Amino acid sequence: MSLVTISIILGLVAVAYGAFTSTQVLGASAGNAKMQEIAAAIQEGAQAYLKRQYTTIAIVGVIVAAIVAFALGTISATGFIIGAVLSGVAGFIGMNISVRANVRTAAAAQTGLQQGLTLAFRAGAITGMLVAGLALLAIAGFYWYLTQVAGYSVGGDDRTVVDGLVALAFGASLISIFARLGGGIFTKAADVGADLVGKVEAGIPEDDPRNPAVIADNVGDNVGDCAGMAADLFETYVVTVGATMVLTALLLKGVANLEALMALPLLIGGVCIVTSIIGTYFVRLGGGKNIMGAMYKGFLVTAVLSVPAIWWAIGYALGGMETVINPGAAQEFTGRTLFYCSFLGLVITGLIIWITEYYTGTNYRPVKSIAKASETGHGTNVIQGLAISLEATALPTIVICGGIIIAYQLAGLMGIAYAATAMLALAGMVVALDAYGPVTDNAGGIAEMAGLDDSVREKTDALDAVGNTTKAVTKGYAIGSAGLAALVLFAAYTTDLKEFFPNLEVNFSLENPYVIVGLLLGALLPNLFGSMGMTAVGRAAGDVVKDVRDQFKNNPGIMTYETKPDYARTVDLVTKAAIKEMIVPSLLPVLAPIAVYYVITWVAGDQAAGFAALGAMLLGVIVGGLFIAVSMTSGGGAWDNAKKYIEDGHHGGKGSEAHKAAVTGDTVGDPYKDTAGPAVNPMIKITNIVALLLLAALAAH
Amino acid sequence: MSLVTISIILGLVAVAYGAFTSTQVLGASAGNAKMQEIAAAIQEGAQAYLKRQYTTIAIVGVIVAAIVAFALGTISATGFIIGAVLSGVAGFIGMNISVRANVRTAAAAQTGLQQGLTLAFRAGAITGMLVAGLALLAIAGFYWYLTQVAGYSVGGDDRTVVDGLVALAFGASLISIFARLGGGIFTKAADVGADLVGKVEAGIPEDDPRNPAVIADNVGDNVGDCAGMAADLFETYVVTVGATMVLTALLLKGVANLEALMALPLLIGGVCIVTSIIGTYFVRLGGGKNIMGAMYKGFLVTAVLSVPAIWWAIGYALGGMETVINPGAAQEFTGRTLFYCSFLGLVITGLIIWITEYYTGTNYRPVKSIAKASETGHGTNVIQGLAISLEATALPTIVICGGIIIAYQLAGLMGIAYAATAMLALAGMVVALDAYGPVTDNAGGIAEMAGLDDSVREKTDALDAVGNTTKAVTKGYAIGSAGLAALVLFAAYTTDLKEFFPNLEVNFSLENPYVIVGLLLGALLPNLFGSMGMTAVGRAAGDVVKDVRDQFKNNPGIMTYETKPDYARTVDLVTKAAIKEMIVPSLLPVLAPIAVYYVITWVAGDQAAGFAALGAMLLGVIVGGLFIAVSMTSGGGAWDNAKKYIEDGHHGGKGSEAHKAAVTGDTVGDPYKDTAGPAVNPMIKITNIVALLLLAALAAH
Repeated sequence: MSLVTISIILGLVAVAYGAFTSTQVLGASAGNAKMQEIAAAIQEGAQAYLKRQYTTIAIVGVIVAAIVAFALGTISATGFIIGAVLSGVAGFIGMNISVRANVRTAAAAQTGLQQGLTLAFRAGAITGMLVAGLALLAIAGFYWYLTQVAGYSVGGDDRTVVDGLVALAFGASLISIFARLGGGIFTKAADVGADLVGKVEAGIPEDDPRNPAVIADNVGDNVGDCAGMAADLFETYVVTVGATMVLTALLLKGVANLEALMALPLLIGGVCIVTSIIGTYFVRLGGGKNIMGAMYKGFLVTAVLSVPAIWWAIGYALGGMETVINPGAAQEFTGRTLFYCSFLGLVITGLIIWITEYYTGTNYRPVKSIAKASETGHGTNVIQGLAISLEATALPTIVICGGIIIAYQLAGLMGIAYAATAMLALAGMVVALDAYGPVTDNAGGIAEMAGLDDSVREKTDALDAVGNTTKAVTKGYAIGSAGLAALVLFAAYTTDLKEFFPNLEVNFSLENPYVIVGLLLGALLPNLFGSMGMTAVGRAAGDVVKDVRDQFKNNPGIMTYETKPDYARTVDLVTKAAIKEMIVPSLLPVLAPIAVYYVITWVAGDQAAGFAALGAMLLGVIVGGLFIAVSMTSGGGAWDNAKKYIEDGHHGGKGSEAHKAAVTGDTVGDPYKDTAGPAVNPMIKITNIVALLLLAALAAH
Repeated sequence: MSLVTISIILGLVAVAYGAFTSTQVLGASAGNAKMQEIAAAIQEGAQAYLKRQYTTIAIVGVIVAAIVAFALGTISATGFIIGAVLSGVAGFIGMNISVRANVRTAAAAQTGLQQGLTLAFRAGAITGMLVAGLALLAIAGFYWYLTQVAGYSVGGDDRTVVDGLVALAFGASLISIFARLGGGIFTKAADVGADLVGKVEAGIPEDDPRNPAVIADNVGDNVGDCAGMAADLFETYVVTVGATMVLTALLLKGVANLEALMALPLLIGGVCIVTSIIGTYFVRLGGGKNIMGAMYKGFLVTAVLSVPAIWWAIGYALGGMETVINPGAAQEFTGRTLFYCSFLGLVITGLIIWITEYYTGTNYRPVKSIAKASETGHGTNVIQGLAISLEATALPTIVICGGIIIAYQLAGLMGIAYAATAMLALAGMVVALDAYGPVTDNAGGIAEMAGLDDSVREKTDALDAVGNTTKAVTKGYAIGSAGLAALVLFAAYTTDLKEFFPNLEVNFSLENPYVIVGLLLGALLPNLFGSMGMTAVGRAAGDVVKDVRDQFKNNPGIMTYETKPDYARTVDLVTKAAIKEMIVPSLLPVLAPIAVYYVITWVAGDQAAGFAALGAMLLGVIVGGLFIAVSMTSGGGAWDNAKKYIEDGHHGGKGSEAHKAAVTGDTVGDPYKDTAGPAVNPMIKITNIVALLLLAALAAH
């Protein structure tokens, strides 16, 4: 059986796991009629939003597909469509599981904490395995079709396979930036809006059924934190594994077992799906109530099992660990070297998770310092939160730099690619931990609205607090891997450049002013993108505030429980706002590289200057984006948990002045961590992929 | 008369202007006894702070001077000491003028707006001309001594002059980062602390004499916005002009009129002192009350007059505009080309001022959007402010990129150096506009505390509102010029590297992973530095809050005006906190380049890798720092003026919920714009200069 076939089978195993576990989750009790009614409203809102989002994205997608078809041919266009559609499917499934698991988790939490945890985590695991499985199937299946059915080969001068894989990644990235941003704007506009009028002005608790924005807030968890996140991680997986294959095809053109090397990243992805599935069964509370510990147990089992699994995969694919893969090259390496690089990827993943937990967990200095700063008011809370945001970039940067150096010393650029691939191989498990969060968040909301016993809400709150950290962890992980993957894409860019334009001397030295200009313009992109995302949330949240105020004013019965607020009106308003706001920022990374290439080439009167600036822009967007993404996601998580820490009875507890200040910090952190920050990850990749496609298009015409 | 002698004379003209105008300012009425008593308290606090700050800096300075002497010899150590001492003197004079002009401005405002403006602006102009004059004297004098008295020459292999100039710049930078950061922490800790307890908790107005932190707040304006700013701009001037001379010595070694070219940047600085002095006399209100317009009139006169002045200086120094300066070089250029580059520098200055005014002025969308967002609460105010912060980086980045490209196409690296030099040549005028701000701010405080008529406070408030914008303008200008100056320093680094280690192949290509690591670590520095600055303010402000609360509690007579608060206790507390907090962050840019070089050389086992990473770090710190500095300074200014805009009666005016939210935004913006943001400017330069000194030291040993 070929390596690709094995990978496809392992991808199908993930899908089968998803289907099997779905029946378990859906078989659980969906609670009483009131709960089901609320859940139905959330479900309806989420579906309505996703339908409208996908319709809009489809229009952009069709136009871009046509451009890809024109510039690079139908095979690339097919790759683009596969990537785009499956990215959408990943988000759609994530949302659909989540909106059904929420109410069942609330029901299960009536029985006990373990039951709630099991149900919510299973729901997360379904999304996780489907994301990893579909991503693997997309690449492996398309690659299998191109090489086995259509008969294209790699290793020669034919670019069909490489271009197809890049186009596939582009499709995934383009959809995911829309999904991340649209979902992110929706969820945070609803959340911020609901909090501002509900908690701050009207003085009613979170998730109070009298708040007209409460259903929109819960819908947001599903379309943003769940569907958006799933599309994002699908993209990250496809781009990372795809980029590793592309780099293999470009750098190892003439080596003996090129076919096995092309399939190896797929196989690593495949075996880690198995270890991820095994890991999910270890997520259970021990004697205590340490929910985070239960999560880590599962992750640790997956990570530890992945070590021998990857070792086996490499040995099996290459027929041994010690054979030199690229004899005669300046830097020779073996299967064992690639294993070390993969192991390094697992270590980086572990370190980033650990650092992120330190910066966002309630047990450590950062969150406690924000909580303490809340005592002296709104201003000092925000100042300390911003300081922590900036500080949180330090250790991840150092880890990534260490990873780059070690991987490069082991096996050059291929080493970096394998480190990134191994990081992403754990995506199934990481997404499982993340997708669990919005389910418990929703469960808490449903428990509150359905008037369940306070003990239920306490359990869902305990589950949700952990969700804040796991959500931050996924984002740190995604952006960390993006840092490595983008370097791989940059390497593909420079290699392609030499292949397509062999006579052009492109000077990538820092002494070239066009390189400096490219770096600056690249670093500008995430700043501008972040600004657009934040503004969009602020604007949409302002609309929500006005709508809620209006409902309270014109329908005084709401506050006395005599009449019900018009939930659907608010959902509809947020939907429209989010869709409208997501378009322009999403197109920024698509159009900027093209503009920079043409403008600089024109100004300098020299194509080489244009390519140099474009290349530097790709690195600039990583250098700038890494800091913005990490600071926003970690800082936002820290703010959120500082509020939770105060609500747990510190610094005066709920209702104190410190708590009010912490609510402000949480509000500021919302678009940071759930809109602008995470969307930087697909943004970085899109910029890089567009540059690769531009190169291919320029060479073809 | 030699060009250097002319420059020295023009520098002395600036000092003479300062002395002459000082007598005018000091001759003005110092108000009634109550006002003088308050002013004396502020003066005493500022002097006590500066004394303690300089004592601390002196300890660090002596240690560093010893290291410089050991590594590079006594001449470099002398240069370091001159730079350091004069940087301190610039700050000291700025503070001393400011603490005497504040009360006189308050007194003058009793007569009329024009009188207040004249006095405050004259005080600013004294600081401005002394900063520019002393900076010019420092470089020109030291250069004159080395070449005319000690007999060292440039153009040969002797490095004494070049190393001496670099060491001079280092001295200026090191002191200025301490001054900027220490002063920044002091002013904002006092400001934030005073606001939090006074305005927010106790509900007493700003500058109320019952607030124990009110004197500390006013002291802060003088030691931070005035002394710190003066030291910063002194540094920027010395580094930029010095770097241009160093680059001239390195790149134009063999050309015919090298001596004239070495002196030309000094002469440009000199003639622009004259145009700046002329400009100051044009700052006066026309028929209306457009204070900003009056400021711009002065600036515009200076800028326009500088064009022919620079034309004359170049022609006079080179004996004609059309002679090719570097015949036979790959990119030949003439005096006319250098004039175009200088003109470009003036255009960049104008554009940055215009952009900064757009982002921080109350008449435009950004500030209005923050004010509007305040209606929906603290959270949306901060979100919108952060969005504006990020957005504000876009246009300056594009202007700087455009400047780099045009200057480089005209005259290569020398073109960039001349653009930067011309920018800094206007420093006298720019500092005048800036230093005017804290004087009016203090004047308002004194008017309030002395119980002067409300009409006086109205006038000082009008003057102060403009101060917010001019302060932001200076910072944008300083960081913009830093972007260009740092490129010049980087060019000096690469040129030096080739000279010192001719056999070492250092690969600065973006394809070198050590370059990427260097870029990432460089970009990390401003993030970490910003975090430290913000934390320091938060911590020190927290101390102030506790002290003020304590005074209110233990001395209830304060609120009823029966007893006076213990102002000195608060001043003393903030002084200690600021000094303690400034040390570690200031050392970060000094030690980081050294650490990166040694660690990377050791890890890679290759000196070339260490130099590549270090070089990339120098650019990384610009790429990262530019965005952090611009976003913080513009964003902070926008928050401040959004509050002022609301206080002017929009969105509910003073005391409304929107106003409370705007106060929070202003509080957050305080450390952004006055502590962390502006200190990034000297930080960027220090990193670059330390790298240059490290190279020289490695080559010498």
